[in-house]
Amino acid sequence: MARHTDKSASRFREAPDPRFWRLNRSIDFDRHLAPYDVAQSRAHARALNRIGVIADDELPKLDEGLAAIAGELEAGEFVFEPGDEDIHMAVERRLGALIGELAGKLHTGRSRNDQVATDICMAVMDASARAQARIAAAMAELLRLAEAHRDWTMPGYTHLQRAQPVYLGHHLLSWFWMLSRDFDRFAAARRAAAVMPLGAGALAGVNWEIDRRAVAADLGFDSVTVNSLDSTSNRDMVLDYLSAASICLTHLSRVGSELVIWSSTEFSFARLSEPFTSGSSIMPQKQNPDSAELLRAKAPRVIGDFTTLLGVLHALPLTWTRSRSSTRSRRSRHPSR
Amino acid sequence: MARHTDKSASRFREAPDPRFWRLNRSIDFDRHLAPYDVAQSRAHARALNRIGVIADDELPKLDEGLAAIAGELEAGEFVFEPGDEDIHMAVERRLGALIGELAGKLHTGRSRNDQVATDICMAVMDASARAQARIAAAMAELLRLAEAHRDWTMPGYTHLQRAQPVYLGHHLLSWFWMLSRDFDRFAAARRAAAVMPLGAGALAGVNWEIDRRAVAADLGFDSVTVNSLDSTSNRDMVLDYLSAASICLTHLSRVGSELVIWSSTEFSFARLSEPFTSGSSIMPQKQNPDSAELLRAKAPRVIGDFTTLLGVLHALPLTWTRSRSSTRSRRSRHPSR
Amino acid sequence: MARHTDKSASRFREAPDPRFWRLNRSIDFDRHLAPYDVAQSRAHARALNRIGVIADDELPKLDEGLAAIAGELEAGEFVFEPGDEDIHMAVERRLGALIGELAGKLHTGRSRNDQVATDICMAVMDASARAQARIAAAMAELLRLAEAHRDWTMPGYTHLQRAQPVYLGHHLLSWFWMLSRDFDRFAAARRAAAVMPLGAGALAGVNWEIDRRAVAADLGFDSVTVNSLDSTSNRDMVLDYLSAASICLTHLSRVGSELVIWSSTEFSFARLSEPFTSGSSIMPQKQNPDSAELLRAKAPRVIGDFTTLLGVLHALPLTWTRSRSSTRSRRSRHPSR
Amino acid sequence: MARHTDKSASRFREAPDPRFWRLNRSIDFDRHLAPYDVAQSRAHARALNRIGVIADDELPKLDEGLAAIAGELEAGEFVFEPGDEDIHMAVERRLGALIGELAGKLHTGRSRNDQVATDICMAVMDASARAQARIAAAMAELLRLAEAHRDWTMPGYTHLQRAQPVYLGHHLLSWFWMLSRDFDRFAAARRAAAVMPLGAGALAGVNWEIDRRAVAADLGFDSVTVNSLDSTSNRDMVLDYLSAASICLTHLSRVGSELVIWSSTEFSFARLSEPFTSGSSIMPQKQNPDSAELLRAKAPRVIGDFTTLLGVLHALPLTWTRSRSSTRSRRSRHPSR
Repeated sequence: MARHTDKSASRFREAPDPRFWRLNRSIDFDRHLAPYDVAQSRAHARALNRIGVIADDELPKLDEGLAAIAGELEAGEFVFEPGDEDIHMAVERRLGALIGELAGKLHTGRSRNDQVATDICMAVMDASARAQARIAAAMAELLRLAEAHRDWTMPGYTHLQRAQPVYLGHHLLSWFWMLSRDFDRFAAARRAAAVMPLGAGALAGVNWEIDRRAVAADLGFDSVTVNSLDSTSNRDMVLDYLSAASICLTHLSRVGSELVIWSSTEFSFARLSEPFTSGSSIMPQKQNPDSAELLRAKAPRVIGDFTTLLGVLHALPLTWTRSRSSTRSRRSRHPSR
Repeated sequence: MARHTDKSASRFREAPDPRFWRLNRSIDFDRHLAPYDVAQSRAHARALNRIGVIADDELPKLDEGLAAIAGELEAGEFVFEPGDEDIHMAVERRLGALIGELAGKLHTGRSRNDQVATDICMAVMDASARAQARIAAAMAELLRLAEAHRDWTMPGYTHLQRAQPVYLGHHLLSWFWMLSRDFDRFAAARRAAAVMPLGAGALAGVNWEIDRRAVAADLGFDSVTVNSLDSTSNRDMVLDYLSAASICLTHLSRVGSELVIWSSTEFSFARLSEPFTSGSSIMPQKQNPDSAELLRAKAPRVIGDFTTLLGVLHALPLTWTRSRSSTRSRRSRHPSR
Repeated sequence: MARHTDKSASRFREAPDPRFWRLNRSIDFDRHLAPYDVAQSRAHARALNRIGVIADDELPKLDEGLAAIAGELEAGEFVFEPGDEDIHMAVERRLGALIGELAGKLHTGRSRNDQVATDICMAVMDASARAQARIAAAMAELLRLAEAHRDWTMPGYTHLQRAQPVYLGHHLLSWFWMLSRDFDRFAAARRAAAVMPLGAGALAGVNWEIDRRAVAADLGFDSVTVNSLDSTSNRDMVLDYLSAASICLTHLSRVGSELVIWSSTEFSFARLSEPFTSGSSIMPQKQNPDSAELLRAKAPRVIGDFTTLLGVLHALPLTWTRSRSSTRSRRSRHPSR
Repeated sequence: MARHTDKSASRFREAPDPRFWRLNRSIDFDRHLAPYDVAQSRAHARALNRIGVIADDELPKLDEGLAAIAGELEAGEFVFEPGDEDIHMAVERRLGALIGELAGKLHTGRSRNDQVATDICMAVMDASARAQARIAAAMAELLRLAEAHRDWTMPGYTHLQRAQPVYLGHHLLSWFWMLSRDFDRFAAARRAAAVMPLGAGALAGVNWEIDRRAVAADLGFDSVTVNSLDSTSNRDMVLDYLSAASICLTHLSRVGSELVIWSSTEFSFARLSEPFTSGSSIMPQKQNPDSAELLRAKAPRVIGDFTTLLGVLHALPLTWTRSRSSTRSRRSRHPSR
């Protein structure tokens, strides 16, 4: 636990400077981890109950409190407070308000260092599964379209010069195959994230005989990590996810680029439907392929996220370090303790 | 004006798909441009008044309405609505609610294409000036510190191996000189942004004899652009700003890295004060140099922003294109019309 | 075949401009593909023999000529000529000089478009296998070292502040686990490259009943591609390799950074041996950890290669396009035809 | 001087490991600095002569030896040897062979640390001036073309949809204005490089009263650096150059992209001349706009160089560090001593 929220436990006599506090708190980054943090705490409570740290009559109280917080989060009603340093402290603060001192028992046998690492793994598993589902849906639609246009001829291009005739169905399937590889990459990212770090403690493990494999199974992990130092400093699963996303969005940028060109008056190979285009009041003839342009435009942002995380990790000594290791809405943090 | 907010002017018969709408609206990116957009509209109103498009008795009404919006923005009381496609439409919608149909007159002689370009220039001028002020303050503090430690000897390092003795004051001044070059770069970014694109229209200029130089002077620009196509597609000023920031933060990452190493028990060259460090309840001996770590950690994010914008611009045909060209809180957009 | 080397087949009447020729020829990029190109041609000759295009008495001549070229390449005796546009033309030119007109038969049933794609796949398979072997060796050495130092205590750090004591063996194994994930990533890159594109022709397939699976088996591929457009435009296997390398080198940068810090006088945890350090004549006390510094320094270059290839592919319409898609010594090319 | 080439001056008893030597020597990176290194040494010799370190009758011998080396370099006849660790040692080794022991006097009052920094500055000044000259030539040509096509009408595009008619001359001038800003950026890079670091020594200055301003004027610098630590660790001028080049090439990628689209059969706005295009024997109708495609393709490589150097500098403690700070043919190095 950091001193800022538990002054009694610290030898610090001076309060944090407000500028430092603003810079240092990570709540704007890790609030997206909230549902995973709550789910993890519920599983941790069950594990502590199995070794007798949490009594049988305490477990329901903890679980109900955490379930209530999960409900508040889902409904968008959870209120973050200025003193919440990170998502873990925010959840703990709220749990304390709901069920009292019992909330503190959740500290047993874990550190925010392995806690946030576990949250991040859960978030990556979830995001990867969502990406796979969307890619699968897009692939199915491309198959349907290719079938429907299997014998429509069109020029095949090299150098954007007409080369040899091909079928539109054949061209659409070239997009299908790009996406099929993206699907596999997200599957690999999910597997990379499915190794649970919880139990590594701050860096050197914990002194409780918690059944880590049971917790892992409870939370949907495939297995557990072996080395505690690596467990708390490893962010590879986020790199795998961002690499998969960088390549996938680069594929989509090629699709978007083709759709923009095909939508031009000069090519007139395609016409996006009105609900996916924009017009212009001063140029009423226009039907702009905005959705294709946005498909083309997004890759650099995700690539920027990937290189940002690689940059943050570059030359970083192990194990815990203050940084904002991933970026934007998927940001996580390395808490200090 | 885009169809979504002015259906009467468009031949479109179908409403935008909600998924497209969410993807296409830029309000979450360009809301940060709000104060510049309002200031620009006030100057535009004065310019339209000078050529008789806005009557003398209309100008005060417009200006008061815009001033009221500026006040709401500053107070954090401006309410964005789900139908606001971008910041320009949001301001116009609110102005219409405050002063009625007269609000529509602000459309005369400009397009959202040159309007957003002008907003971005103003934002970059402002951000560059702020960066210069902060760098100047840091330089002054380093001078003071160097003076105070001018004859403190310390090892000078190469390869992190002790090489030759130097003075701490001398070392601190090496940071001073890095920052002095950063100051110059932000000055260049400010100059690059101080050329006003307003008057370029959608891409081919406007049909009104607006005195562009007067508007430029009114808004703090140094001069006006010459080519209308370039005016609406140019985002160089953002690149200049992000390049300056990338280099500046890389400098600061070196300073942060030295402070982290100096703060280790093994080096013990420096000890950050309590208000700028964090502690640990389970490891009470610790005083973590979080602020130095964060100083070290931020460069990759800004570099990621720079490469993102370069990536979005890569191979992009002129002039207007739907994209989100810069990133995060400094994001701008290219509206469609 | 491009006009520059086969003018008879082209309607072009003007010679290429020397500046264009210098820019356009890719031999400085793709010469590294030479051994793969020759091996591929030998397998292609066998395949053409199986369908009767190359007679039984022609095959040995072709194979001996190609074997001779392979020997010249390995001995560093192969001479590239100014007129060699790319590696395929260089090999063909040399083969013609060695065995005469028969060399031309190798054109049958393939294009430089699927030929270079196949070369690249072979190069990635090879490079990935090499990376795996080196990582495995490093992991074995780390295991050995960890065993030897299993009970050496050292401070475990968070924030580069002493946190809890750990064993050196434990710390060394945290490096082991990082590398184990890198091993898996290179295995995935190898698998991604092991799908043979040969047979896709320029973009739309070839008109010969070549047994692609037999060729694939002959060259060590696992399987063959399905879609000809995707086959010639796909460079994912290079992205997979570069992503794996980016993450691996970022891991090594962390190891290097720790070794540099450990080698400082202040830490004195490690001392690199003389053959892996440098000294100084004017500062004889120094023993600089250059090898650790270089380990720390290399990641950004490979990350730069990865983002370069992503940038080149960004928004690129299918299928063939002139570019230099990957970089430096592992560069490949997209030939024109 | 490093031990490898001057064993007498070092306490090292073991030779460098061949693998370390291959990794550590920078000659493949910094050989491009050779002409600058020789010019710098000639100016340094004159400066040492002015303070009496080099006698009046020694100066001509040194100068003639260095002039001979310059001639060998220009003729491509300079032979690098396996034992050359870096460009400075290669030149010194050759100078010793030409004029004997006198060559060693050039060590006086400088270190390879300020020597390589000075070489890099000279290289950046030169490269920036060349870029400016080429940009100016391209701007002049665009002006000429715009004049010739001032009243050719064409569609102006937004979203690659026809928007409003414009003149081709107007469009060509939008390229002119992009380049005009690039010209200014390279001018700024040149100014950033025109501050001479020579005299900073290894890191803490030198003990000789060399007239640095005279040397600077001799070599074409505008001024001299003030802080010796900053002098040897500063690589900002390379960052400024690479940032300018990144933005310039991104501009050119937009021009190239437009030319590719304009060259398509569907647009048929432009037709590149035969000497700047390629054809195809199997598709004789084709005239591929390779030169425009390459114009479009180069930006990511330079952006990759820029981010590589930023990555190498990230979190790097001052002052000297072993790395390869810039990339590819313009690579420099940080020698160890």
